[in-house]
Amino acid sequence: MSQFENVTAVKAANIYYDGKVTSRTLLFSDGSKKTLGILLPGDYEFGTEAAEIMEMLAGEVEVLLPGETEWQTVVGGETFNVPANSKFGIKVKTVADYCCSYIE
Amino acid sequence: MSQFENVTAVKAANIYYDGKVTSRTLLFSDGSKKTLGILLPGDYEFGTEAAEIMEMLAGEVEVLLPGETEWQTVVGGETFNVPANSKFGIKVKTVADYCCSYIE
Repeated sequence: MSQFENVTAVKAANIYYDGKVTSRTLLFSDGSKKTLGILLPGDYEFGTEAAEIMEMLAGEVEVLLPGETEWQTVVGGETFNVPANSKFGIKVKTVADYCCSYIE
Repeated sequence: MSQFENVTAVKAANIYYDGKVTSRTLLFSDGSKKTLGILLPGDYEFGTEAAEIMEMLAGEVEVLLPGETEWQTVVGGETFNVPANSKFGIKVKTVADYCCSYIE
């Protein structure tokens, strides 16, 4: 699906790490939420509240998922899952475009 | 208005200047279009096709509008207009969040 229809788009951006990580929030009629975001090259750590499905739309990152000891490469077209209430590391190799779905 | 309802959000980002300028496209039921974007600090030049209303949501930039010789400071909460089929310069001082409306 190349676009999301009948959604509510929050106007203000979510801005992290001095703007090197930013996203926009989309709210769906079923009460669910996604963010569309950009990751610029760098090393970051994020915490989750809800579980997340991270769909990489473009770019290349390495992720260290909770409980893992090895970084895993994820490129555009691939997806990784993060459990609720956890932390994960991400090393962004090239500008990355993503769609994150929150699973309540 | 802090959010846009009943819009179509294009999934893939628009990415310029190695990701230092990115935006997301929103399509409205009346056929109009807006983009929600982020500008990281730097100097850029953009060309327009449609006329644009640039609403700065956050951050500070200086703009050189077509036909002008002086740069003008624009901060979050302020707006500037760019004519169709023109070019403008923008110097981004602090991470800027914007909403751009295209006037066909």
